[in-house]
Amino acid sequence: MSVITFLCAGQMNSAITFPAFENGHEVRLVGSPLDREIIERLRRDNYHPTLKRTLHAGIRYYQKEELPEALEGADLILNGVSSFGIDWFVREMLPVLPEKVPILSVTKGMICEEDGALTPYPIYMQRMQPAGRQMRFFGIGGPCTSYELADHDDSHVAFCGEEMETLRWMRSLLGTSYYHISLSRDVRGVESAVALKNAYALGVSLAVGLAEKRDGQIGAVHYNSQAALFGQSVREMTELIRLCHGLPENLIFGAGDLYVTIFGGRTRKIGTLLGRGLTFEEAMRELDGVTLESIVIATRTARAVRQMAGAGLVRTEDFPLLMHVDEIINQGKPVSIPWDAFTFVREEI
Amino acid sequence: MSVITFLCAGQMNSAITFPAFENGHEVRLVGSPLDREIIERLRRDNYHPTLKRTLHAGIRYYQKEELPEALEGADLILNGVSSFGIDWFVREMLPVLPEKVPILSVTKGMICEEDGALTPYPIYMQRMQPAGRQMRFFGIGGPCTSYELADHDDSHVAFCGEEMETLRWMRSLLGTSYYHISLSRDVRGVESAVALKNAYALGVSLAVGLAEKRDGQIGAVHYNSQAALFGQSVREMTELIRLCHGLPENLIFGAGDLYVTIFGGRTRKIGTLLGRGLTFEEAMRELDGVTLESIVIATRTARAVRQMAGAGLVRTEDFPLLMHVDEIINQGKPVSIPWDAFTFVREEI
Repeated sequence: MSVITFLCAGQMNSAITFPAFENGHEVRLVGSPLDREIIERLRRDNYHPTLKRTLHAGIRYYQKEELPEALEGADLILNGVSSFGIDWFVREMLPVLPEKVPILSVTKGMICEEDGALTPYPIYMQRMQPAGRQMRFFGIGGPCTSYELADHDDSHVAFCGEEMETLRWMRSLLGTSYYHISLSRDVRGVESAVALKNAYALGVSLAVGLAEKRDGQIGAVHYNSQAALFGQSVREMTELIRLCHGLPENLIFGAGDLYVTIFGGRTRKIGTLLGRGLTFEEAMRELDGVTLESIVIATRTARAVRQMAGAGLVRTEDFPLLMHVDEIINQGKPVSIPWDAFTFVREEI
Repeated sequence: MSVITFLCAGQMNSAITFPAFENGHEVRLVGSPLDREIIERLRRDNYHPTLKRTLHAGIRYYQKEELPEALEGADLILNGVSSFGIDWFVREMLPVLPEKVPILSVTKGMICEEDGALTPYPIYMQRMQPAGRQMRFFGIGGPCTSYELADHDDSHVAFCGEEMETLRWMRSLLGTSYYHISLSRDVRGVESAVALKNAYALGVSLAVGLAEKRDGQIGAVHYNSQAALFGQSVREMTELIRLCHGLPENLIFGAGDLYVTIFGGRTRKIGTLLGRGLTFEEAMRELDGVTLESIVIATRTARAVRQMAGAGLVRTEDFPLLMHVDEIINQGKPVSIPWDAFTFVREEI
């Protein structure tokens, strides 16, 4: 039995308490300052109000100020901060976490560096840790909705990081008959694949709104256009994973994740609204102005591509869908899918 | 203006009359012996009873016995025979078609050779043409449902064949503002990608039925398991395209097509029924015993993999989803997804 401390009580982190607890470990769930009410409710009856599931009785709950107690004797830390809280996590949490305990993050996203390089969060955190410390960071990527994991549905994810030994140990702690875990030292590949799919899920969803606009009917579905955008997404993601210095095999986590993201959620919603003809501002108002990870990652990736293009490393014309998504969300352009830019001519075989 | 003769009045071939006619060409649609009633109906009021769309007035319709007239002065032949009619087409049609007119086929599928090699239909037809003739064969692949093409929805497909000049010319005849065409000399890559997706669409659909069985509710959807199967499909298809000597870039046509096929149709239906727990025989009875292309291609591809494995070229363990689909449909095994066989460990980067 090990002690696993979960930092932040968001939906995904809380869902991973299911395999952790069922494997017999001591599970401690610590709320961020934003999670106060979630922790209060969990203490009352183990019901998680945003995950909408009852967690296992026996899990221990902590508010932020009880962190030292929650960390006592911890063998593994699960980091569930959202991508918008990553700098808060680096600034406030890293200095108070024990140096020797590995940190496994579910946070998806990448930083766009000055030179256009895209750096995934586990590598970013490694670099941003307090001077002189040697903390170790690992990541979880792959198609896995939190509520289905909580329901014990079969899911396949990847744990990634530099130390294979630690990855194997983490899998032994968390793997179950329904939580299937691949292991990879290719952090850049796994993390870029799963971060990029958010940007492209928005792109594919444009076709949903375009179809609705055309048919004058909410819910109209046109598969050919969605499939063409899906194929183009796979093509651009493959190239971007390569530019992030990742192995192409990780496309499977991005493509599987893309497939799922298009089915629902807020990224599909905004893509659909934009496709229907709303401006980006109008679409964001319908979503109550909540900033989406898909918007952030599309913007950052487009910026990275432009910078790499400036340095002669790529051509922006090789990413027509990403560039179009970027000009819709950041330059107020109307949706006008550049279909012919997706076609290609292959003479050499 | 060119003369384009469409052989067989199936849904996809008939749908391509839309861009062809709208580009100002003379369009002639010839029914196979199975299409008699379709041609009769089209002659009456241009309504296509299985495509369920009214074709353009001005298209000329022919029964099989009027073939010579339909071929007079033809510049291009579109071949729309189903994969089950391919040998009929080779035997009955090739000898009577003009040698110099290129043949562009929408037929998807591959032959499994004695040695386990998979040969796509355009190459198979090239080989099977009457001795001494020099007919030229081209193929269309990619995600495109016939009724959406007829409705002028945006679609992205690939025309493939050996002669780039002829491919460009065919694109000039058929490309429109909604029918977007890539060109590729990689016949094996394009054709294997689009043929394989049928086998894998069945594999992914198993998760739909498993979810329904689990929840005791038709229509229950579990995305994590579908996404895991989708990712595994992408992985196995990528490797199979390589084994077919195709370029990996063609995965985009297979993945886009896979995405669409899973949404509906008979392949999804049989996968779902199997996932619910029906035996293959029971599932086929529900589908009135209609043989599906997905069944044929899964069986042939599995056979090819086993033969290549016997020759030491591949390992069957690298295709766990394909092998499981094959044992379900050909050995009566119950559905039991080999989830853990999908996970991998990547140490080298």
